[in-house]
Amino acid sequence: MAGPTSLECGIGLGESGNVDFVSMLERAWASADSLLCVGLDPDPSRLPGPFHAGTDRLLRFCSAIADATADIACAFKPQIAYFAAHRAEGQLEALIAQLHDRHPQVPVVLDAKRGDIGSTAEQYAREAFERYRADAVTVNPYLGFDSIEPYLAYPDKGVFLLCRTSNPGGADLRGLDVGGERLYERLARLAAGQWNAGGQIGLVVGATYPQELARVRAIVGDMPLLVPGVGAQGADIEACVRAGADSRAGGMLVNSARAILYASAGDDFAQAAREVALRTRNALNAARRALR
Amino acid sequence: MAGPTSLECGIGLGESGNVDFVSMLERAWASADSLLCVGLDPDPSRLPGPFHAGTDRLLRFCSAIADATADIACAFKPQIAYFAAHRAEGQLEALIAQLHDRHPQVPVVLDAKRGDIGSTAEQYAREAFERYRADAVTVNPYLGFDSIEPYLAYPDKGVFLLCRTSNPGGADLRGLDVGGERLYERLARLAAGQWNAGGQIGLVVGATYPQELARVRAIVGDMPLLVPGVGAQGADIEACVRAGADSRAGGMLVNSARAILYASAGDDFAQAAREVALRTRNALNAARRALR
Repeated sequence: MAGPTSLECGIGLGESGNVDFVSMLERAWASADSLLCVGLDPDPSRLPGPFHAGTDRLLRFCSAIADATADIACAFKPQIAYFAAHRAEGQLEALIAQLHDRHPQVPVVLDAKRGDIGSTAEQYAREAFERYRADAVTVNPYLGFDSIEPYLAYPDKGVFLLCRTSNPGGADLRGLDVGGERLYERLARLAAGQWNAGGQIGLVVGATYPQELARVRAIVGDMPLLVPGVGAQGADIEACVRAGADSRAGGMLVNSARAILYASAGDDFAQAAREVALRTRNALNAARRALR
Repeated sequence: MAGPTSLECGIGLGESGNVDFVSMLERAWASADSLLCVGLDPDPSRLPGPFHAGTDRLLRFCSAIADATADIACAFKPQIAYFAAHRAEGQLEALIAQLHDRHPQVPVVLDAKRGDIGSTAEQYAREAFERYRADAVTVNPYLGFDSIEPYLAYPDKGVFLLCRTSNPGGADLRGLDVGGERLYERLARLAAGQWNAGGQIGLVVGATYPQELARVRAIVGDMPLLVPGVGAQGADIEACVRAGADSRAGGMLVNSARAILYASAGDDFAQAAREVALRTRNALNAARRALR
């Protein structure tokens, strides 16, 4: 998964001269010594006391969480729905700009799960990469490869395709047998093969189904996997790392949101968030060491 | 597909006392004598002369198109990506409010194709129905039934699930064989059966593949089908109606956007849009008459 061009120092540079997403991610994994991705899903009804009012409270809350966890996170993942439902796109823009400014070493994955075709997909790619300036975006691949191409046209950017999500209903369609393999396995093969000429693709695979996570890892080699499901969703960290780690006992962005964001409803929310994030990071690292 | 409750006059009323989506749609089909859905996809680079500048130009343009076509349209379908890419959510909100105000008989289908799970899906449903006040929304069902339930929790609202879109890549995954039927056929069966207890579901099926459209219609009975692909995408209207019409030679929202929106780049754009819309409506009706 090297970027389109690479320099000897090992940092890939895309056409625009920016660091490409996978190189940025590799550095973040190493410098934070962490597989933890901090999910920024600010539910107004669950914010701690200091954020019960104010027109920029989603921004202020996420910003405080980010500041408290940036040195132990390999990525931040803001979820656009929590902003869009509350007319807060401006706060999301400001948040991502602030993350780039204060924590330039931590890549930002915009969780948008868009999926559309042709000129509409181009507009969504523009939304993610030009408006919000995300380093990577989650995309729903159900509409086929031509629906993904407009995102891949940004050579420095990463694209995480939904493969096997963490919910029970994930099996309704993606668990179906398609000629001797499951639909999510077929998707993993396409994503790691013919679709990934530019090396920009990663996959979203839930931690809640470790056998399926292991199956995806076996198919895709060392491709980055964005893995939700630990924390509030209850997946086991050790099983998750055993199933999902790549050949270097890494290669994952293990996302936790609610368990970190809402660790305390009081004034100590940021410190409490950091403690949960640190425990999660350390548990992930302990599980990695057990693999070596 | 009656709403959760219904009155003798034949207009379904949801729990909130509003007219439910399918009843509203039935009335719009009848009163406009039209299967034409006008797609509102305002691409800034293609707007006619009067809209080359101005902070509310997307709103003004779509509003002019809507005013010129409201009496011959069964629905309006704004595509959120064209607003989101240009920081124009406020214009989309204002547009939908204006559509409800000026053309209350025409349902508004928000084309958003969201697809997520749990509390995130709840936020997206809130975005579509509470923030934007759409009458129906398009949703990507790839994540399974539990990803759709938060939308169905709004009993007056309609939910169009992506089934077989109009792009070539639509076959990459949805055309796969799953135990003797195609994935899109399985989806159609689920959508028309166990998923549709509330009668709120419709499907999106492209006109560009009429055999597959006919197959979906055979599976789902008289469920509403939102059918993109005529107009700029080039699908044949007669074949589309023959394949997709329900038992009453209707039951479709046949979407055309670019062919109508960009019928003229000059000051006569609204009149030109109306003429294309009228021709399309009439061609659809001629094709329906041929079925009877």
